[in-house]
Amino acid sequence: MNLTKQALWKRFQKYYTEFPSLGLAIDISRMNFPDDFFASMEPRIQKAFVAMKELERGAIANPDENRMVGHYWLRNSALAPTEEIRLEIERSLSAIKSFAKEVHDGTVKGSGGIFRNLLIIGIGGSALGPQFVANALGHPNTDRLRVFFFDNTDPDGMDRVLASIGTDLGQTLVVVISKSGGTKETRNGMLEAQAAFTKAGLNFAANAVAVTGVGSELDKVATSNGWVRRFPMWDWVGGRTSELSAVGLLPAALQGFDIDQMLAGARASDEVSRLTEVESNPAAQMALMWFFAGNGKGEKDLVILPYKDRLELFSKYLQQLLMESLGKALDLDGKSVSAGIAVYGNKGSTDQHAYVQQLRDGINNFFVTFVEVQRDRDGALLEVEPGITSGDFLNGFLLGTRQALYENGRQSITLTITKCTAYEIGVLIALFERSVGLYASLININAYHQPGVEAGKKAAGAVISIKTQTVEFLRRSEIKALTAEEIAQGLNFADEVETVFKVCEHLAANSELVRIPGATAFESRYLFPST
Amino acid sequence: MNLTKQALWKRFQKYYTEFPSLGLAIDISRMNFPDDFFASMEPRIQKAFVAMKELERGAIANPDENRMVGHYWLRNSALAPTEEIRLEIERSLSAIKSFAKEVHDGTVKGSGGIFRNLLIIGIGGSALGPQFVANALGHPNTDRLRVFFFDNTDPDGMDRVLASIGTDLGQTLVVVISKSGGTKETRNGMLEAQAAFTKAGLNFAANAVAVTGVGSELDKVATSNGWVRRFPMWDWVGGRTSELSAVGLLPAALQGFDIDQMLAGARASDEVSRLTEVESNPAAQMALMWFFAGNGKGEKDLVILPYKDRLELFSKYLQQLLMESLGKALDLDGKSVSAGIAVYGNKGSTDQHAYVQQLRDGINNFFVTFVEVQRDRDGALLEVEPGITSGDFLNGFLLGTRQALYENGRQSITLTITKCTAYEIGVLIALFERSVGLYASLININAYHQPGVEAGKKAAGAVISIKTQTVEFLRRSEIKALTAEEIAQGLNFADEVETVFKVCEHLAANSELVRIPGATAFESRYLFPST
Repeated sequence: MNLTKQALWKRFQKYYTEFPSLGLAIDISRMNFPDDFFASMEPRIQKAFVAMKELERGAIANPDENRMVGHYWLRNSALAPTEEIRLEIERSLSAIKSFAKEVHDGTVKGSGGIFRNLLIIGIGGSALGPQFVANALGHPNTDRLRVFFFDNTDPDGMDRVLASIGTDLGQTLVVVISKSGGTKETRNGMLEAQAAFTKAGLNFAANAVAVTGVGSELDKVATSNGWVRRFPMWDWVGGRTSELSAVGLLPAALQGFDIDQMLAGARASDEVSRLTEVESNPAAQMALMWFFAGNGKGEKDLVILPYKDRLELFSKYLQQLLMESLGKALDLDGKSVSAGIAVYGNKGSTDQHAYVQQLRDGINNFFVTFVEVQRDRDGALLEVEPGITSGDFLNGFLLGTRQALYENGRQSITLTITKCTAYEIGVLIALFERSVGLYASLININAYHQPGVEAGKKAAGAVISIKTQTVEFLRRSEIKALTAEEIAQGLNFADEVETVFKVCEHLAANSELVRIPGATAFESRYLFPST
Repeated sequence: MNLTKQALWKRFQKYYTEFPSLGLAIDISRMNFPDDFFASMEPRIQKAFVAMKELERGAIANPDENRMVGHYWLRNSALAPTEEIRLEIERSLSAIKSFAKEVHDGTVKGSGGIFRNLLIIGIGGSALGPQFVANALGHPNTDRLRVFFFDNTDPDGMDRVLASIGTDLGQTLVVVISKSGGTKETRNGMLEAQAAFTKAGLNFAANAVAVTGVGSELDKVATSNGWVRRFPMWDWVGGRTSELSAVGLLPAALQGFDIDQMLAGARASDEVSRLTEVESNPAAQMALMWFFAGNGKGEKDLVILPYKDRLELFSKYLQQLLMESLGKALDLDGKSVSAGIAVYGNKGSTDQHAYVQQLRDGINNFFVTFVEVQRDRDGALLEVEPGITSGDFLNGFLLGTRQALYENGRQSITLTITKCTAYEIGVLIALFERSVGLYASLININAYHQPGVEAGKKAAGAVISIKTQTVEFLRRSEIKALTAEEIAQGLNFADEVETVFKVCEHLAANSELVRIPGATAFESRYLFPST
């Protein structure tokens, strides 16, 4: 279905919608849905609106975990279902703002004096939002603190971050974020940071702040060690929708971003995307386009292409928001569905020089969401050709790529925002949160749990236990050098030879065991090093 | 096909291969190919080996562009098909090393004195390799220069990079990389950098270096302005396989990385992956697994999951290498194939907290390539639990996730490298380059051209021309305020109303035009601002 330019202009006028209160426009004219698509989906989308209304009223929208889903209340506390929750939200926001002020004016100091750096320790929902926002709103000339992240349990990675901080460690505020308070990567990051402080003769507690559920393991550590401050997380906010709770707002406020504007943008976005007419509701339009593109089965990957360096991490943020929410084995009736939408992307026009070759010519297993930012730069524009700026090229490449893809039958949505400030970031976060919720209703799944991630954690625990037992076994063994098979037999782990082998190889590479090479990989023997 | 643990251990032993000379092992035991798969593919892979041999000997392996494909000669110049090419490679390498030495010892200085920073201006193949390597090998304590990138034509993005460099601009060596010398994003980046130097009263030419084809536009600029140095690019090296040419080696040498070790790793990897027995050839095994996973049609996305912060940009690098090489409309016989493999990923265990929920439970449209790095860190290990380190958790999460995915029928390859130094980075680059080449042969496509990217550039050119004409038309128009439709009519661009509309909106957001809102978006009128 390739239209003439005239027909396309008509289609564009029909399916391009501006939302002046949001500084947003959405264009779905390059999605090839038929004219009766919205009508055919009307019963389903109305059902989704009803479910969303119930959720916002405090229904148990996450039945598996018996939880309310309250991220929409965070930017409009008046909507909270109880007075207690409303007050919690307001108290937390006010505590965040006053703490940031105290940090900025030096009322609160660390063990090395006034804070200059911010080290955020968190993973998943406790890192992706803060990283996205730090990159979207930060600027070296205006940021109040330089921001760093521990977002993994890679010791070498943490060493590098600590080396970047260098001698400023005492002036580094450490914010440890874990909703459950029991995430191992975050716990390890905290211990690594603490060890670095101790090594430098600094008091970690004087620089440490916790964002966690009241009464969690992390909360107990923070309390008993007298950390600087604690901020609450609630069981009605999921990790991947926590950017507008203390998880995201505290780092943002500390960096000097306007969190009131972030919240205002999200609130305004919510208001518009609560409307039950699809033509007036950008979140409903997106959810329906996702459904159309992939037949409600995720048959097309979603490629996120923002034409703005500041939005480079948006795709990573959305990977979690969409894939963890929508990637589910069962629907709400227990039927096997294997749902999901794969998300990837970085930024344009950079990615045109990477994989747009495949998008245009190769396998047609995706649809694009372009994000256009109209405002090019603060300050004077530079002409790179007579009358033409770098930003004109950026915009030209977006429009050109959109057209080149369309000509080859590749579909796209275009989101346009006027500029990239705190307000629009709030708009975008809220917009995608609601699109995810509506799409989940369209395909009848629970978007708010993540039952599939436990298996990997449990298996990892088993690996770690095998490591401990392997080392202990070799330490005590009379025959000093043993193969992985012999160790597994000795431990009565006949089923776990491969894990023992992998663990021994890892230990040998780190000088915790000595490896004596054999004729084949599996005849290598390992021994506990003599001290 | 879920095997018992015992059967799985047998399969692992069969399909786990160590390459001690590379510090590499590959495990394909978690790909569910039947035992006769290799035998059934033997004629095809032998044909691929022959094609690769021809290519390495200097055949025209890129027939559309009538070019040789010579990236394998870069790490073993003795293989070059002519004496002239051999000497070019050797001269370039020697020039890179001596220039880096001169920069490091201060023999070559910039307009602000000894060089402390490196600003790389390039996009696509001229940025993704240098970015990947800078992150994989860099460390704030040992890097000889701090590295920055202009990898887009986003003026705001460039402003931020310049602000990060701050007052050190005069001590910044600027390396402009463009093979063709005509890439607009790179040209714009060069002009923006030049303007910043001029504004700071600094001589840009005294800090500027070019990596480009001899006689290109960029080469002419560098020559006529007396830039510090020029390094050659050749038409027999493609952008996405240029990391081991001056494109990648010059930045790496300037940062102080051991480029001889990078080349040695790539050379050793090439030697092993030239072998024509699949069981001894890791590149052939990967290519065959890609074929198996997606039926030679890219039916499964490739998710890259390195468990190492240093390898976080590997997926972006591979996105280009695979998707630009393999994403093709036609095969070598002109048959429509719509080939390709979509690639995404970041790093583990971080991504377990993002999208592994979908990988395990949701749509099964992917296979994973885990990258395991055995060595955890330099320096002492820290215990986070008795006998357990952060690195043990990292390794446990990798093994645990691999197992949890396998249990649910999700396939994976695991690449294991002993450590992450220049040698192994060379190994990995060469390994994937050859896997791509072999896979392209298996599916009978040209991996070395990119015919699909021109359309977007051409369309962008048209947009930019419409901008110029729109501004000019409004500047001269007697009726001052016009709608997009009226402007398009006036310019006789009846087919381009939408582009005129988008261009006007962009201009208005940047105060180049004034927008008078109308009753609907399309009734807005635009006028040239009175001065």
